[in-house]
Amino acid sequence: MATATRRLALGLDYGSDSARAVLVDVATGAEVAQAVANYPRWTKGLYCNPAKQQFRQHPQDYLDVLVAIITGALKKAGKGAGEQVIAIGIDTTGSTPIAVDRDGVALAMKAEFAEDPDAMFVLWKDHTAIAEAEEINALCHGGKHKDYTATCGGIYSSEWYWAKALHVTRANKKVAKAAVSWVEHCDWLPGVLTGNNLPATMVRGRCSAGHKAMWAAEWGGLPDATFLAALDPRLAATRAHYAADTTTADQAVGGLLSAWAKRLGLKAGIAVASGAFDCHLGAVGAGATPFVLTKVMGTSTCDMIVAPAAAIRGTVAGICGQVDGSIVPGMIGLEAGQSAFGDVYAWYKRLLGWPLAGNPKLAALLDGLLPALEQAAAALPPAGDVVAVDWFNGRRTPDADQRLRGAIAGLHLGSDAPAVYRALVEATAYGSKAIMDRIISEGVKVDGVIAIGGIAQKSPLVMQICADVLQRPIGVVASDQCCALGSAIVAAVAAKVYPNVAAAQKHMASKIATTYKPSKKTAAAFAAGYARYQRLGAALVADARG
Amino acid sequence: MATATRRLALGLDYGSDSARAVLVDVATGAEVAQAVANYPRWTKGLYCNPAKQQFRQHPQDYLDVLVAIITGALKKAGKGAGEQVIAIGIDTTGSTPIAVDRDGVALAMKAEFAEDPDAMFVLWKDHTAIAEAEEINALCHGGKHKDYTATCGGIYSSEWYWAKALHVTRANKKVAKAAVSWVEHCDWLPGVLTGNNLPATMVRGRCSAGHKAMWAAEWGGLPDATFLAALDPRLAATRAHYAADTTTADQAVGGLLSAWAKRLGLKAGIAVASGAFDCHLGAVGAGATPFVLTKVMGTSTCDMIVAPAAAIRGTVAGICGQVDGSIVPGMIGLEAGQSAFGDVYAWYKRLLGWPLAGNPKLAALLDGLLPALEQAAAALPPAGDVVAVDWFNGRRTPDADQRLRGAIAGLHLGSDAPAVYRALVEATAYGSKAIMDRIISEGVKVDGVIAIGGIAQKSPLVMQICADVLQRPIGVVASDQCCALGSAIVAAVAAKVYPNVAAAQKHMASKIATTYKPSKKTAAAFAAGYARYQRLGAALVADARG
Repeated sequence: MATATRRLALGLDYGSDSARAVLVDVATGAEVAQAVANYPRWTKGLYCNPAKQQFRQHPQDYLDVLVAIITGALKKAGKGAGEQVIAIGIDTTGSTPIAVDRDGVALAMKAEFAEDPDAMFVLWKDHTAIAEAEEINALCHGGKHKDYTATCGGIYSSEWYWAKALHVTRANKKVAKAAVSWVEHCDWLPGVLTGNNLPATMVRGRCSAGHKAMWAAEWGGLPDATFLAALDPRLAATRAHYAADTTTADQAVGGLLSAWAKRLGLKAGIAVASGAFDCHLGAVGAGATPFVLTKVMGTSTCDMIVAPAAAIRGTVAGICGQVDGSIVPGMIGLEAGQSAFGDVYAWYKRLLGWPLAGNPKLAALLDGLLPALEQAAAALPPAGDVVAVDWFNGRRTPDADQRLRGAIAGLHLGSDAPAVYRALVEATAYGSKAIMDRIISEGVKVDGVIAIGGIAQKSPLVMQICADVLQRPIGVVASDQCCALGSAIVAAVAAKVYPNVAAAQKHMASKIATTYKPSKKTAAAFAAGYARYQRLGAALVADARG
Repeated sequence: MATATRRLALGLDYGSDSARAVLVDVATGAEVAQAVANYPRWTKGLYCNPAKQQFRQHPQDYLDVLVAIITGALKKAGKGAGEQVIAIGIDTTGSTPIAVDRDGVALAMKAEFAEDPDAMFVLWKDHTAIAEAEEINALCHGGKHKDYTATCGGIYSSEWYWAKALHVTRANKKVAKAAVSWVEHCDWLPGVLTGNNLPATMVRGRCSAGHKAMWAAEWGGLPDATFLAALDPRLAATRAHYAADTTTADQAVGGLLSAWAKRLGLKAGIAVASGAFDCHLGAVGAGATPFVLTKVMGTSTCDMIVAPAAAIRGTVAGICGQVDGSIVPGMIGLEAGQSAFGDVYAWYKRLLGWPLAGNPKLAALLDGLLPALEQAAAALPPAGDVVAVDWFNGRRTPDADQRLRGAIAGLHLGSDAPAVYRALVEATAYGSKAIMDRIISEGVKVDGVIAIGGIAQKSPLVMQICADVLQRPIGVVASDQCCALGSAIVAAVAAKVYPNVAAAQKHMASKIATTYKPSKKTAAAFAAGYARYQRLGAALVADARG
């Protein structure tokens, strides 16, 4: 029986709204089965306050779906599939940290914190820590301390680990008192599954540590205690509960605990790889090679490029991070991105859907809204009267500033819903161009662009506009589960099926399925549109500064 | 029988979408009956191209509703009412000119032009003549000619007579060849009703001539022929078909033709007053006295103030016009306004209504949309995250520039439909403040503010926000038909019932029904919001200039 010899890697991909388990044949990279589930509490809107940009997720949500998606995928893969799984790889959103106690228990898992949003994961897109990020930047740039922003483009973001930990520490005394350390979602889940979860000794992934917690080998790990104490002594105290070294995603954190193995239908002791952020493992799944820009295009974007250390001159200004081994071990991983991409379209859908909301009879109309807008917008000329700026969730790169906001201008009485939609799509494409241009102007060449993620797979209009605005071909990979595939690839390396990520990618990574070619015809219109975008953006920056 | 001694003035008010006839008792100003009708062709969207901001109205639309509303109002007023009507006053939108032939026939009334939008009335909000307005401004400011913009705030608008005539003349050879002159809607209809419609001799109203056609006694009437010839010799040729003198609205154009009298159920020979713009006669109906700012608040606004000539020092920069006798004979009438006001809300309703449009089952949802938004927006704090600029139909005042466009900024993922609606309402209020501030900074005091029009009558939220933003009490008059009432008032003077407008106003003008008092609590928030509005506006001006 062919399945008897089959070896599977289980890639788990924890996104913003749902998680997915994908079973991948380690010999071929073929997807054998997958299952997906939405976070139940999150779906109900619990613990969030969109008006304050507070977005929290309960750890129990992650565990509930863990069981559902793994058992679901195994069931689809057929009898005996559980026995064939040799390793688990995990990617999650980030920076999405949570406060843990001395035993490594996430605070919200304890009865007294079960309903406290501050004891939950602070989701990547939570922007409650804007003031704290500014304080961190001021401290880094004040001259008294080392500039720990050197590896994150010169600007620390409110979306990241220390800003969030500082915000919650100040905002919630009870949580601050109970918090011994803060743990990223991508590190927490491997810790839970392997029992390697004591804060001081558990494995911290290179990707999350380097990109979000200012961890760097060159300054001996985390920022030093005097720096952290200057922010808050309680933060400095957490430093002792964070291992000095970090681990790349191709290394095993430990073996699957037998209790979890039983519950999930897997073998006890199989390798669980060190977790990493979804986008970084997405780039691995997409087969990223040096100097190819991999864009993960979903609710937000993550734009990544790997390059040998020799190709990078110092700090790449205005991006999110440059971390040795964060994407592919042995290479510098550069990360940038837009804080909102598909979320901009989703916002517009909510806006136009306001009259329909809460009426089950109109659900079909609401569901059909974006497709209808896309169809109507496709017929409109490029870069028309309406111009927008995509900073609806702040600006991550270039030059992080989460205080910035989106805008729509050039509106007149004849500007209809598709025209505004098209302007929003163009704005997100302009945001992509701003990032690519910055990478290039900072001296890192871009030899190609590949795209993964829901938008890349599902929206030909958005992708064509991106290709036209970037004036670059964009290859969209075949797999619609590249992040999970990347997790499966590093899991296969962690299980020693392959000696390294590059070797595993050769057998398992996805191929390019579709290439969007830039149109020469629209180039001039989009160049003019991009100039308007930049001018409007400059005005918004000026406004944000009062 | 009491009705035997009743004397009625018939006020006709031609708005953007519909016309209304109001029968008013000349002794008391009491409304006896009214009837309204929509323009049938306009309602179908004929002859317009909103994407190009082309808005045209067929003269037959005006005549069709004329019969409907007059006979309708008379029927409601009871038997014998037609015999009691002693005069007709007419107000219309403007500048809304049409090309006429040698016999004074509007071109679109002729078979060969019946379907040609260029042969129809070019509605006030049509912005096809932007380039031509710029050319006129350049010529006025070039030093070779007199600066004919001295009475219109220094900037000629694309919404006005000569820009529109020039645009159509160049765009349509056939119309240009047939056009002997251009006639404003408010002058055309009295001409039709009295037979006093030969272009060279017909009565041109002071209001339309002075505010829109650069007519001024001080330079001998219209701009001189060399100026017009520099624009286009065909325009210069129309000068000979335009009477040297103009007439205030309290003067009769002539007596009602017997054919029309028969058709309308009125007495032949009754006085038909010289027509004027709706807003100007609205101010008359509202009982405007010197230094009281009268705001006509509807799809757009018209902001008017009358003052003795001695109180005005030269050109009031950046407003729409300053014309002796244009509102109240013997006083300087100053006019300003916002090109879009209620139209901004209507735009938003169309935007949010896009998914509902064309589905008769959802018509109730669409109809309830603005009330629902208003209710939700009322609960939001003043000057929140979202800020907008109201130039969705260009900017009329201060400093006319119809190339400018509206914008919405400060948008984030939590900005919902009511928040955006509230920002749009606040933007229109900020636009009102910009106008009032300019009038004051130009040396004309504002002792009070009164409001008329649909928005003033129907939207307490908008009115309260306006009072709060202006930090002035705003009195809303009792009559919901102030323009028609003003037409009836001038008709009564034209019929010699009263010796002048002020005397007629004492008996007939409307009273204040409701006063919105400014809140001190919101003053600081709105002051900050207004500063953001001004900054965003400055950026839009910079963008429009490339």
